[in-house]
Amino acid sequence: MGQKDISTTANNSDSDNNTVKANIAFIGLGNMGAPMAENLLKAGYALSVYDLSADATQRLQQAGARVADSPKDAASDAQVVISMLPAGKHVHAVYLGDTEDGKVANGLLAELPKGTLVIDSSTIAAADARLVAEAANKLGIDFLDAPVSGGTGGAIAGSLTFIVGGSADAFAKAEPILAVMGKNIFHAGEQGAGQVAKICNNMLLGILMAGTAEAINLGVKNGLDPKVLSDIMLQSSGRNWTLEVYNPYPQVMENVPSSNQYQGGFMSKLMQKDLNLAMQTAQDANVDTPMGAKATELYGAHTVENGDKDFSSIMARYDSTVLSS
Amino acid sequence: MGQKDISTTANNSDSDNNTVKANIAFIGLGNMGAPMAENLLKAGYALSVYDLSADATQRLQQAGARVADSPKDAASDAQVVISMLPAGKHVHAVYLGDTEDGKVANGLLAELPKGTLVIDSSTIAAADARLVAEAANKLGIDFLDAPVSGGTGGAIAGSLTFIVGGSADAFAKAEPILAVMGKNIFHAGEQGAGQVAKICNNMLLGILMAGTAEAINLGVKNGLDPKVLSDIMLQSSGRNWTLEVYNPYPQVMENVPSSNQYQGGFMSKLMQKDLNLAMQTAQDANVDTPMGAKATELYGAHTVENGDKDFSSIMARYDSTVLSS
Repeated sequence: MGQKDISTTANNSDSDNNTVKANIAFIGLGNMGAPMAENLLKAGYALSVYDLSADATQRLQQAGARVADSPKDAASDAQVVISMLPAGKHVHAVYLGDTEDGKVANGLLAELPKGTLVIDSSTIAAADARLVAEAANKLGIDFLDAPVSGGTGGAIAGSLTFIVGGSADAFAKAEPILAVMGKNIFHAGEQGAGQVAKICNNMLLGILMAGTAEAINLGVKNGLDPKVLSDIMLQSSGRNWTLEVYNPYPQVMENVPSSNQYQGGFMSKLMQKDLNLAMQTAQDANVDTPMGAKATELYGAHTVENGDKDFSSIMARYDSTVLSS
Repeated sequence: MGQKDISTTANNSDSDNNTVKANIAFIGLGNMGAPMAENLLKAGYALSVYDLSADATQRLQQAGARVADSPKDAASDAQVVISMLPAGKHVHAVYLGDTEDGKVANGLLAELPKGTLVIDSSTIAAADARLVAEAANKLGIDFLDAPVSGGTGGAIAGSLTFIVGGSADAFAKAEPILAVMGKNIFHAGEQGAGQVAKICNNMLLGILMAGTAEAINLGVKNGLDPKVLSDIMLQSSGRNWTLEVYNPYPQVMENVPSSNQYQGGFMSKLMQKDLNLAMQTAQDANVDTPMGAKATELYGAHTVENGDKDFSSIMARYDSTVLSS
């Protein structure tokens, strides 16, 4: 584990001349976390990183991070903790010490000094985020749920969208740090609101994508040209994000997954994960979501065979020939 | 019935100096047809009109139209026939002579000279439109299906959207006439394609509206502000026409039906009619539409009580308090 003179790193930064930047602990260096952490390093933040994977930490070490033995070690000299973990159980395990999977260190929150800013960018259930937030509040720690959208491409380019829940003060402190990794930073409301807003958006996106694929298929099976129909709907009241930038029918639009065998983009199994989270969030609050439930059902069946394909491949549920075009 | 010197009307037009305008027969002067016909009169077209309602014909007579006794009479001196009728059975009755309701004259197509241009702007099933089109083709008559969107407001303002199916030649002949009544004029493809494209768009619109209402409700029931959540989704991948111009949640947006007790706009029962047509079109072509079917089910239940309210009132299916706000 290479130690590094953190203050020197911070002072050598080109991108900010006067402010002494916070030391940041970054926990979770997966496909999203690693490039996000690299962008913080590039912006001159001193970073201590933790991940179970040695490959992941090695990459960040080469980029200038200090590699820590544990979340606690990573946070030992940090004013800010950022986490990017796969699911709610990992967030619980790191912060609350729920060692359900037996691999992660115990209760980081209990180790942090008052006033530490914790930003969890994992996409998890709002109820899970609120549980961690409440524990943090009791300890005088600022907790923000700040899930992202924009995928690995956005993480690498530093153009992610952050949807943040938490107090206005904590949001104001986090904003310049998030701005290093993202382009659009929204304050959705109180703690948990970031997760809720993201999951509302992604449930709606699942509905838009399945609905748009379905409408195009209905037209094509009735003899219409998919591009002509898409253009008409794009200029009419059927307009939506998928018709604007992400048409699910092959060769209607250039440089989208549907025109490249549905590779890249946002995998169907990740859409399914988000739809399942939306259903859980709805159930927790006793809210009815019939359209979301139908989209969840369609993506559930679709991912059995096509989980690794971009989520626009739901088109194949309507017309299986698109997979070979 | 006031006869009118048609050639004089045409020659006196200010809006076109050189071309002698076609004589047009206009059949069906309802909430949509009447203002469409008036816009043709204003543009200097000589119009013969027919409707079962004396009130409707009187209004057009005052505006300068010749009132005819029958569709055949209306078309007696017309090079172009336009119809705007409530449903497929009326279109059949007028053009093919199916006198199912016993009130409309027999088979207009058989009376028209070869080369007459027929534009049916009714919203009917594609299969019904194709049946009439085939009969017209055999008689050497140009038939276009040209359903509209934009509602009575668009009909009055002359800003309708026409979605047209038929030959390129017939479309080219129709375009300047349609441009008098509409702003966006799309050529969707061959005969029937206009109906198909409109119904695909409106099915998708029903899905967008129900899905957007559902996503906003999920957020609101989890403590989010409907305007904050709407803004976030509008700038994210949940973006769609309803969030842009027609938010279904009260007071998020000004000058939309949801901020005016869901009055005006596009009635829920008309959305339900279009969704039922979409389901029929899907069934006719053996195409599966699970998202559309779910939206049809939701609007079917919603219209029992709220058929006359704007279609964004589907919001009340999720949160009944919006009806009193």
